[in-house]
Amino acid sequence: MRNLNADNITDAVIEQFSGCEDERLKSVLNSLVSHLHAFLRDVKPSEREWTEAIDFLTRTGQMCDDKRQEFILLSDTLGVTMLVDAINHQTSDPQITESTVLGPFYVADPPEAGQGESIDWGVEGEPFFVEGRVHDEQGEPLANVVMDVWQSDSEGFYDVQKELDSASLRARFKTDAQGRYAFWTVTPSPYPIPTDGPVGKMLELTGRHPYRPAHVHFMLMAEGYETLVTQIFAENDPYLDSDAVFGVKDSLVRDYALKPPGTAPDHHTMQTPYRYLKYDFGLKAS
Amino acid sequence: MRNLNADNITDAVIEQFSGCEDERLKSVLNSLVSHLHAFLRDVKPSEREWTEAIDFLTRTGQMCDDKRQEFILLSDTLGVTMLVDAINHQTSDPQITESTVLGPFYVADPPEAGQGESIDWGVEGEPFFVEGRVHDEQGEPLANVVMDVWQSDSEGFYDVQKELDSASLRARFKTDAQGRYAFWTVTPSPYPIPTDGPVGKMLELTGRHPYRPAHVHFMLMAEGYETLVTQIFAENDPYLDSDAVFGVKDSLVRDYALKPPGTAPDHHTMQTPYRYLKYDFGLKAS
Ligand SMILES: [Fe+2]
Ligand SMILES: [Fe+2]
Repeated sequence: MRNLNADNITDAVIEQFSGCEDERLKSVLNSLVSHLHAFLRDVKPSEREWTEAIDFLTRTGQMCDDKRQEFILLSDTLGVTMLVDAINHQTSDPQITESTVLGPFYVADPPEAGQGESIDWGVEGEPFFVEGRVHDEQGEPLANVVMDVWQSDSEGFYDVQKELDSASLRARFKTDAQGRYAFWTVTPSPYPIPTDGPVGKMLELTGRHPYRPAHVHFMLMAEGYETLVTQIFAENDPYLDSDAVFGVKDSLVRDYALKPPGTAPDHHTMQTPYRYLKYDFGLKAS
Repeated sequence: MRNLNADNITDAVIEQFSGCEDERLKSVLNSLVSHLHAFLRDVKPSEREWTEAIDFLTRTGQMCDDKRQEFILLSDTLGVTMLVDAINHQTSDPQITESTVLGPFYVADPPEAGQGESIDWGVEGEPFFVEGRVHDEQGEPLANVVMDVWQSDSEGFYDVQKELDSASLRARFKTDAQGRYAFWTVTPSPYPIPTDGPVGKMLELTGRHPYRPAHVHFMLMAEGYETLVTQIFAENDPYLDSDAVFGVKDSLVRDYALKPPGTAPDHHTMQTPYRYLKYDFGLKAS
């Protein structure tokens, strides 16, 4: 293993991994080395470009902390996250809700809330009523499904970005015996992914905008079913066709319908206009 | 740009970079996205594997500081550094010295030393006399070439790893009017690349050893010539054919000849055995 050049180094590196006893790890690394070297042979980086790439990756790692994951942002903006999602959750059954990116703002074990409750917890904004049913592949209602919900406020910020003392616009529900869920919140807005790190710089240098269309995140968990991670997007949002993280699917776009003051679907009396979203989720047996 | 799946997402991501005005950056990113997505389609990572990859990259970035560059180590151990070197410094002219990896232990502007001086600066070890000439493509001597030298001690550690107050086994020389250089040092030993980070873990999990064969690093800089970054390896070293960073070339391997006590080539009288290396470097006009 000497005198390696651009033609024989790839095989030499792969040969060094030949003793790996973890067959999966070995095949992943072999493929990584092949594709990575093919990329380098293709673009023929100068040494300065290589140094810049090392520096970019280093700064990306150093931007990460318990509230910020810049490598996930990089994966999102290069379409990697959605590709991994597509590889793991391909479905053509219209009864099964499609998945999309988790995003960087999920917090495990959010505060629990009851059926029909508001999760605005003092955040101002346009009132927004969201309800629907969760069912299986045959359309039968699923009771006691754990549903985590999280979203931005009307200015595009998540609670974790605002350094609040407590969670807001984020909660855990359970579906009732008829598979129903319902909650009041405020209408989310489009927002830019965080742009103050290396990924934001990459978007800027390449003329890409950092915006995502307005959406509400959902994670649905039930025994015997695949966990569903998805988002429901607002129809007519200007960023639906240029989502910075490539996450929009037609089946996940719905009218956040503007309703006049009056009696809401949950019989609540509204003095102001509000918005209404109805969405039924279908889970796939695992 | 909606409803992206494993088949059409790559084109969609490339399309998002179409407005990039920096043509080089655009073509590099297009190639990166193509090859990265091809890798993912090939290995079909689970979501858990994707999470582990994000975590690996994050830890690699967070291992870096002003004395440690874990991403360079990753590049080195995946053969990327040597591939970039091969792409940038292909030569078939035997008058030109081949290049190899810079490694993580180079320090810019090392202390200057005079012709024939010792750079051991109090470090114990087997005495080692190194000398030679620097010439151009026609074999004509090159005077006043700046030559930075750095190496490990006889236990495999560089000064920067030992938190010393001052540099050791590291210096800057200039060739004399006949293109000559000479210095005393101690014989370097094989050493493991740092194994306490994610890259070390990767080597361990894949059954690869972390060792590099013993070597002395050289960087030669002269007006009108390409900077040469190289290493001279010790013949018969057990790691010549399994260098953890793929850097060995036959033209860079030489006998670190063991000599009995007596008069050294620089007329110095040695009371103990010592080693001797003679190497002539050829620089390429830039
Ligand atoms: Fe979001
Ligand atoms: Fe070294």
